[in-house]
Amino acid sequence: MANSLGKLFTITSFGESHGRCVGAIIDGCPAGLAITEEDIQRDLDRRRPGKSIAVTTRAEADKVEILSGIFNGITTGAPICLMVWNQDIDSSEYEKNRFLPRPGQADYTAFMKYGGFNDFRGGGRFSGRITATLVMGGAIARKILGLAGVEVLAHTIQIGGITAKPEKFDEIRENTGKNSLNCADPEAAEEMARAIEEAKKEGDSLGGIIEGIALNVPAGLGEPIFDTLDGELAKALLAIPAVKGVEFGSGFSAASKKGSENNDPFALKNGKIITTTNNSGGILGGISNGMPIILRVAIKPTPSIAKNQPTVNIKDMENTSLSIKGRHDICIVPRAVVVVESMIAITLCDLAMRAGLILRVIK
Amino acid sequence: MANSLGKLFTITSFGESHGRCVGAIIDGCPAGLAITEEDIQRDLDRRRPGKSIAVTTRAEADKVEILSGIFNGITTGAPICLMVWNQDIDSSEYEKNRFLPRPGQADYTAFMKYGGFNDFRGGGRFSGRITATLVMGGAIARKILGLAGVEVLAHTIQIGGITAKPEKFDEIRENTGKNSLNCADPEAAEEMARAIEEAKKEGDSLGGIIEGIALNVPAGLGEPIFDTLDGELAKALLAIPAVKGVEFGSGFSAASKKGSENNDPFALKNGKIITTTNNSGGILGGISNGMPIILRVAIKPTPSIAKNQPTVNIKDMENTSLSIKGRHDICIVPRAVVVVESMIAITLCDLAMRAGLILRVIK
Amino acid sequence: MANSLGKLFTITSFGESHGRCVGAIIDGCPAGLAITEEDIQRDLDRRRPGKSIAVTTRAEADKVEILSGIFNGITTGAPICLMVWNQDIDSSEYEKNRFLPRPGQADYTAFMKYGGFNDFRGGGRFSGRITATLVMGGAIARKILGLAGVEVLAHTIQIGGITAKPEKFDEIRENTGKNSLNCADPEAAEEMARAIEEAKKEGDSLGGIIEGIALNVPAGLGEPIFDTLDGELAKALLAIPAVKGVEFGSGFSAASKKGSENNDPFALKNGKIITTTNNSGGILGGISNGMPIILRVAIKPTPSIAKNQPTVNIKDMENTSLSIKGRHDICIVPRAVVVVESMIAITLCDLAMRAGLILRVIK
Amino acid sequence: MANSLGKLFTITSFGESHGRCVGAIIDGCPAGLAITEEDIQRDLDRRRPGKSIAVTTRAEADKVEILSGIFNGITTGAPICLMVWNQDIDSSEYEKNRFLPRPGQADYTAFMKYGGFNDFRGGGRFSGRITATLVMGGAIARKILGLAGVEVLAHTIQIGGITAKPEKFDEIRENTGKNSLNCADPEAAEEMARAIEEAKKEGDSLGGIIEGIALNVPAGLGEPIFDTLDGELAKALLAIPAVKGVEFGSGFSAASKKGSENNDPFALKNGKIITTTNNSGGILGGISNGMPIILRVAIKPTPSIAKNQPTVNIKDMENTSLSIKGRHDICIVPRAVVVVESMIAITLCDLAMRAGLILRVIK
Repeated sequence: MANSLGKLFTITSFGESHGRCVGAIIDGCPAGLAITEEDIQRDLDRRRPGKSIAVTTRAEADKVEILSGIFNGITTGAPICLMVWNQDIDSSEYEKNRFLPRPGQADYTAFMKYGGFNDFRGGGRFSGRITATLVMGGAIARKILGLAGVEVLAHTIQIGGITAKPEKFDEIRENTGKNSLNCADPEAAEEMARAIEEAKKEGDSLGGIIEGIALNVPAGLGEPIFDTLDGELAKALLAIPAVKGVEFGSGFSAASKKGSENNDPFALKNGKIITTTNNSGGILGGISNGMPIILRVAIKPTPSIAKNQPTVNIKDMENTSLSIKGRHDICIVPRAVVVVESMIAITLCDLAMRAGLILRVIK
Repeated sequence: MANSLGKLFTITSFGESHGRCVGAIIDGCPAGLAITEEDIQRDLDRRRPGKSIAVTTRAEADKVEILSGIFNGITTGAPICLMVWNQDIDSSEYEKNRFLPRPGQADYTAFMKYGGFNDFRGGGRFSGRITATLVMGGAIARKILGLAGVEVLAHTIQIGGITAKPEKFDEIRENTGKNSLNCADPEAAEEMARAIEEAKKEGDSLGGIIEGIALNVPAGLGEPIFDTLDGELAKALLAIPAVKGVEFGSGFSAASKKGSENNDPFALKNGKIITTTNNSGGILGGISNGMPIILRVAIKPTPSIAKNQPTVNIKDMENTSLSIKGRHDICIVPRAVVVVESMIAITLCDLAMRAGLILRVIK
Repeated sequence: MANSLGKLFTITSFGESHGRCVGAIIDGCPAGLAITEEDIQRDLDRRRPGKSIAVTTRAEADKVEILSGIFNGITTGAPICLMVWNQDIDSSEYEKNRFLPRPGQADYTAFMKYGGFNDFRGGGRFSGRITATLVMGGAIARKILGLAGVEVLAHTIQIGGITAKPEKFDEIRENTGKNSLNCADPEAAEEMARAIEEAKKEGDSLGGIIEGIALNVPAGLGEPIFDTLDGELAKALLAIPAVKGVEFGSGFSAASKKGSENNDPFALKNGKIITTTNNSGGILGGISNGMPIILRVAIKPTPSIAKNQPTVNIKDMENTSLSIKGRHDICIVPRAVVVVESMIAITLCDLAMRAGLILRVIK
Repeated sequence: MANSLGKLFTITSFGESHGRCVGAIIDGCPAGLAITEEDIQRDLDRRRPGKSIAVTTRAEADKVEILSGIFNGITTGAPICLMVWNQDIDSSEYEKNRFLPRPGQADYTAFMKYGGFNDFRGGGRFSGRITATLVMGGAIARKILGLAGVEVLAHTIQIGGITAKPEKFDEIRENTGKNSLNCADPEAAEEMARAIEEAKKEGDSLGGIIEGIALNVPAGLGEPIFDTLDGELAKALLAIPAVKGVEFGSGFSAASKKGSENNDPFALKNGKIITTTNNSGGILGGISNGMPIILRVAIKPTPSIAKNQPTVNIKDMENTSLSIKGRHDICIVPRAVVVVESMIAITLCDLAMRAGLILRVIK
């Protein structure tokens, strides 16, 4: 079940970039949850290409339809089928370059794994478009978490080497959606936009870093030793195309710290146990400790670029080269912000159910 | 099954630091594999504390016993039980500090998750000692992979901010085991040893970075969209205590590169398709592409330090402080090298079986 | 993932009786399999109500649509979404009796489990209509098995106490589809039809027994000790509403036999090892032995009957009674024959993949 | 993970009949449960050969050792390793007949599945001895269920064609353990004992039927549509060697009843909804309805018999014959009673946790 994730709260993803639809089945959602198409549409719309920066010209309405599992606006406990129909499909470029794997894309590995039978149009199953299925599942997860007071945020903290200055949670919540970069630091956002325009002119692309945050997560989520909170989050986040690394709390910078610097002292605050710093990112021994969950994902630059690149014709087995003319984002980072939130929400929801903190019927 | 990992080739881990034993059940191992206790002991011995650097004074023989699943030296297809008996146990310090959670350790989260019933002695189930169970499973996985020509390596590339210079695979294979740091760069290794000694004097500890490598992995491992090669590796690696981040290929540095810099061009070499660079770390779209798998894990400094640290008495709910006198490694990185190898091997083995590249009987 | 079945070849079912659709996601299907909507429609049509016996008057075209996973008529390795839209819905009777659980149906247990949020219309998720999703999955499984020469058959062997006489495999294959009872014994079929007419007049219903058969199954399917061939088949078959028992080979009659009568002697036949009898039903130790798989499922009489039955108003908590006027089959057995075949095929396909006998790409 | 069963409460079984040990890992057991070796030993002792009837002469003390997961007599939330060491091993007969598969046993299928590498001594992994691992897991499951007031019973209702007369639950609880047949009807028990003696004289063996009962199971257990209560029970029970059929409530007899006879009317009793009959066996739509769970399993006659039987030498590929001289039970039914109870308890425990009716910490 490689296209299903989760143990109690699960998402099954289906559909292709240039097929008839993309969709998700959510199984294990508690009964009794009020949810509307608007709840899901809100997140789907956040994933759609913005206007002020260089993004794909593919224009998809991405209107979600709820096909099962919800009756009179309330979840029934049955699997929920969510669907978005594909509309604006143009596969011409892909047919032409069918046997020229694009560097940095899954064309070659998909060809090898599926014996050449994979749907190559628009990257098929490996397209960024598949993240719409993740966002649909995330919208439901987030609705459930919301009942428990858990909030999931994400924001762009780096693009093209430009780093946003650290912001407080309130500012992140407030400012992230205000620019098309989904960056809580407005000045950095402007610089990032300029860098993206520059890359576009060069026929090139940019990557970046997204920070994910979950607030009010109770202590106790995570099922060691293998189904740890950090392990399950990392696996879920690496399902997002282009993610090449995940770190928690002080992450890679912890490697050059001393124990006395990196340890988070425990202290009492208003009768509750907290840590006075949060280098752990809210996770100790694979279990949430009640502090904010903090993580970062590295996103590589969009592999599809206009610049000419060497590749191989896998049919004729000849060296050749390729310039990609399809409809692509110069930098996928801003659009991936809501996807990062979605994967965090889905993972937390599943682990909260496994920990018995969310029950099967919402009263 | 939070203590089981894998779908076709699985490891179930059990045991506690100060309990009677630590052990592993390997299920799904192909029948017909020749394996001896020596094969497993070799890796277990690599995990034992070295001599020239500051490590725990706990002296465990760690002799593996095969209790099931192997008959006349050959796997039978039945689950393999591997066991190491605990011997040198001293729980006195833990009984004393039972209600003082150590900063940076799982004491507090385990207490919260298991209602205070967790075995706190020596960290119980969250002890580094549990990695012996992973290494036993890894030894079997690696034996299977070896038949397919796949080789797994790991080495220390950073400790306490000191970075080893990049080495070729041959040098890594050759040199890593020659010093107690498991570092392929002998000069860096000496510096690292000095840094560890320094930290010890300060009553402090150090972290670092380990690089993991898998050679000769065929194209096609990984089951997108959720059970990706990188996602499964990350989840497995985050089961190692103290790992706080995982990255693949160019990893976090990809975030500030351009597409034209980060994409790996395809080319023909001796009639085979390769990439001329390996920023992808051998993984595209969650599937191996036939190039070396390259990943790095960030390991935080050992949380147990002699220095005084603030904490809370969770019984009396009072602020207090703690100086840890147990038997601990100043830097766990060198001993974690074989654990990183083990988790890579276990994950590759499972995914190779899922891809149908390793069958259920070895002929 | 209660609505998913299987480990490598999996089916996820969704949809409700009176919702917008019923559908299935097939994940793990090998790439390279030629499959058309007609292949699936053929089995769906066999599940539709016949004409000569008393069946539901609900008239559904049940036209399958393939929404993903198949490209140019060939499976791609991606999840396959199969959908049937509901059309002829009449929920009036259900709204009226919403709080009167029908004896023998899942109304009461669904109400209790899902806190009253379950979609009660037409039995919602517990309707016989959901078996259409199983049949769609079965059609794909059977196509895969067909490539390996495995054939799955089922036929009615008892209805209303009338028992068909035993037939040879050829006759079963030949005759089963010739009458609306799906019974290979034409004389028994006529009697069964009369019994159904009789029950209809009485406002009552009938049950029966279906025999399932799988031919040319190679030795080695089944993953003991828990994922046995018989265990997985039984679990899959009990997902069919109204099934109350499953037996293999001599089944319950084995209980009163002696070992010397029930054991199947091994013998050589044309250089192959066979058993000269087949009391085991082709399964020894949870593993196929190469002989025909033989099983039987007991199907209870349709619970929905016109006769007046005592029940409880679960809203007012008062004793009351109920006469069911909806559109129902007097005997579901004939229509369940293809569903039994489907669940056998799905289970065999998954276990064949787990045994490495079917690979991930069909060449 | 073919040797693991369950999703939240799981058992992993390991060990062989003539290996060093048999054991079980219980993972997912709630923390805070008081459990002693005596709790487990009690059930293990009930599985040991009785004295008054013809049973194996293998004399195993079967003393359980708890190796992990329990600290100061209380579960910790960590995996529990339970072990029984093998002592009275005599493999001589098996070495001699290594290539002569015993009719009715798994020798042939294991040989085929595991390429001849299976441990054939004493049936290896397919021995009845493996049921000791199930009983150990069952003892823990039953302790948990006991806290919720759920009681699991089983008793012999048929041996060698002799049927016990139906008894009330109180009498079953009271009388079952009073004879070595584990039959609640003392007169039938005597007849059964005589039949076993008779079969022994003939060098033959007998089968029978066991009824399993679970009392006070709340409504709501079972996760349709695939992980139904009956489906999961059937799968678990078919893991017991020699079980060839499972039925629930009226079971196979429902097939010849009318709807009006088989439906269980709902009624109010002391303010609670009950059914006035229990043909459903306490399960509707795959979910418990609050009535007693009633099921029956068919157990085939012990395949190992002294009588001469035809078989094939699988090394030389020649027809030959075999008379089995090992140490065997003439009738396994009485010893299987506690195993049936164990599998019911394990399944109920897992489904109760999945339904959120048992939480992760017992307070």
